[in-house]
Amino acid sequence: MKIYADNAATTRVSKTALDAMIPVFTEMYGNPSSLYSLGQEAKEAIENAREEIAGIIGAEPREIIFTSGGSESDNHAIRSAAELGKKNGKCHIISSAFEHHAVLHTLKRLEKEGFEVTLLDVHENGIVDPKELENAIRPDTCLVTVMCANNEIGTLQPIREIGEICRNKGVLFHTDAVQAVGHIPINVKTDNIDMMSASAHKFHGPKGIGFLYASKKVRLSNLIEGGAQESGRRAGTENVPEIIGMAAALKEAVSNMEENSKVMCEARDRLIEGLSEIPHSALNGDRDKRLPGNVNFCFEGIEGESLLLLLDDKGISASSGSACTSGSLDPSHVLLAIGRIHDVAHGSLRLSIGEDITKEETEYIIKSVKEVVEYLRSFSPVWRDLTTGKKQFIL
Amino acid sequence: MKIYADNAATTRVSKTALDAMIPVFTEMYGNPSSLYSLGQEAKEAIENAREEIAGIIGAEPREIIFTSGGSESDNHAIRSAAELGKKNGKCHIISSAFEHHAVLHTLKRLEKEGFEVTLLDVHENGIVDPKELENAIRPDTCLVTVMCANNEIGTLQPIREIGEICRNKGVLFHTDAVQAVGHIPINVKTDNIDMMSASAHKFHGPKGIGFLYASKKVRLSNLIEGGAQESGRRAGTENVPEIIGMAAALKEAVSNMEENSKVMCEARDRLIEGLSEIPHSALNGDRDKRLPGNVNFCFEGIEGESLLLLLDDKGISASSGSACTSGSLDPSHVLLAIGRIHDVAHGSLRLSIGEDITKEETEYIIKSVKEVVEYLRSFSPVWRDLTTGKKQFIL
Repeated sequence: MKIYADNAATTRVSKTALDAMIPVFTEMYGNPSSLYSLGQEAKEAIENAREEIAGIIGAEPREIIFTSGGSESDNHAIRSAAELGKKNGKCHIISSAFEHHAVLHTLKRLEKEGFEVTLLDVHENGIVDPKELENAIRPDTCLVTVMCANNEIGTLQPIREIGEICRNKGVLFHTDAVQAVGHIPINVKTDNIDMMSASAHKFHGPKGIGFLYASKKVRLSNLIEGGAQESGRRAGTENVPEIIGMAAALKEAVSNMEENSKVMCEARDRLIEGLSEIPHSALNGDRDKRLPGNVNFCFEGIEGESLLLLLDDKGISASSGSACTSGSLDPSHVLLAIGRIHDVAHGSLRLSIGEDITKEETEYIIKSVKEVVEYLRSFSPVWRDLTTGKKQFIL
Repeated sequence: MKIYADNAATTRVSKTALDAMIPVFTEMYGNPSSLYSLGQEAKEAIENAREEIAGIIGAEPREIIFTSGGSESDNHAIRSAAELGKKNGKCHIISSAFEHHAVLHTLKRLEKEGFEVTLLDVHENGIVDPKELENAIRPDTCLVTVMCANNEIGTLQPIREIGEICRNKGVLFHTDAVQAVGHIPINVKTDNIDMMSASAHKFHGPKGIGFLYASKKVRLSNLIEGGAQESGRRAGTENVPEIIGMAAALKEAVSNMEENSKVMCEARDRLIEGLSEIPHSALNGDRDKRLPGNVNFCFEGIEGESLLLLLDDKGISASSGSACTSGSLDPSHVLLAIGRIHDVAHGSLRLSIGEDITKEETEYIIKSVKEVVEYLRSFSPVWRDLTTGKKQFIL
């Protein structure tokens, strides 16, 4: 059995998206900035894609800027807000402790440039408290950036409330919605969002393309300088085929969202039930306020990496946390942020299932994880120390 | 007849490149940062692509950073060099007056941040004089950025000599080689290049992908912060299919370079010969030191835009200059830089032919341009003023 259970890392490009892209590569290959018909066709196609995407999230077409993906969008949004803030003498930014590194590392850099950053606690349930956010806002706060859904533990943040608080206080609100767009309903207007990052490859679109929603009220500065593309806000020849692929994928994801969500929630809930039977295990993040496809557990006494490799042998692709930080020996900053200690955080497993998951596959995953955890514990010195009482169980 | 003669704006994706990409979208879709086999396959594929590209330009694989294209590469290279320079108290940058806007606008921004920029004259022939460059280098010069081949008039710059001067003076040398890579031989080692930008869609690869070569001696700073991809130098999930498409396209372009170049040079020379017969016309840029596929003319008394639209009606896709600045009413900064006055610069035509051009097509282009120029002049008030002696001919 082959089960891809790492859809939070990336997804397979859907047939719809691929079919939309292929003719663009070889037929509608004009440069959208060119005046002749081949160029204008491409221009029209990306403007249709922009309109489609804008419509889906409740934005105006001119509020959508195509980028190379989520990281670029995050960098672009945050640096723009920081630049605007600086001009007005406002150099304080609020975020959360478990944002994606595209956000956290950009904030680190801004700190070096003189900005002050407050990272909100995300508590044991992995959710920011809007009251704490409200209390953290200062007269010199120029930006609040809190993700829509966490990429490791899938917890959903109270975006609408956060947005409302920001709006009332006159502070810009950006959300990294890379994990959320195409998976849960989002409307930038009713959710009070000023800027939002999204990435196509998280919803069965291609890698290398994403978008930044920026309210028309926000004056973006350029991250990439050059030509006049994207109304002068993002230079570089537009990635026409992938823009069209992204729009097709998003349209499909949103059309099937209700149905997909039902399938995924059922499988997720069964996985949580099944894996909870493993002794000394714990679900990471809120039980209910989480993405339909996200399951994230810590198992005491094992190493996440070995767990993944053995699951791979059984045909299951899963991860220990974010793909973007794999290869690092540090435990996940997300798990540390929700209070897991180093030892426990090391034994984590993220399953991010797709909408095509079957009941049979769900049971196979449960059975496999149980077997592999038991096997790994059978020769783990840490587990021996735990069971012999030399060390104390945490979970 | 349909003739695409705007390959400098963008190219059709080759069958080889597309065939290489398609299975990656739907089969090898893993995230290269993931540990399981589907991820590691993708990782291996992009590392093979990196090796292939590095080999072609004489670099080491670790010296290749994948980016979203030429503009990002230019921004990344220049900002990195500026940051390094600033640390050492060197805040002077040398470039040329007719660089791509991805370079010029980045330099403009650096000027606002306190850098001093010297733009070298490119003379009537559209070529930087290495002696003038040498004289412009100061003790506080941190970077020389001069393009390899101009995107509008196709003139080739004495890159190797410039690189040698920079090396001798201990100054970093970056070249925007977006128009050159895949079209003329380039070897970063023998050409003394420290950093080089390239874009796949200029050599029959896909849009939205490019690379930055940065010598291992150069410590890049990040333009896009986030995950640890590209050895921590460029965050964001890798655009795996397009990276593979780019490598396939470049390999193909380089394998056929000699043959393609012969076909294109022949067609180019015939076009220059044919279009020179139009009275009061002039070739822009050096007659010989230009890209195999580039023809760029000014025709007095007409507007370039009307010329393009009428050529489009005849099935010929061409441009007046850079696609990236189309829509702007300003005349080309490139043509102004080689000394064309505003009025003349407005009547420009760039033909950038492909390697599949036929003799019949070449003759058709000549015939069509002659007809259209004559037609436009027949009701141009400027032309009437010129022919009645109210205005003086320049060309």
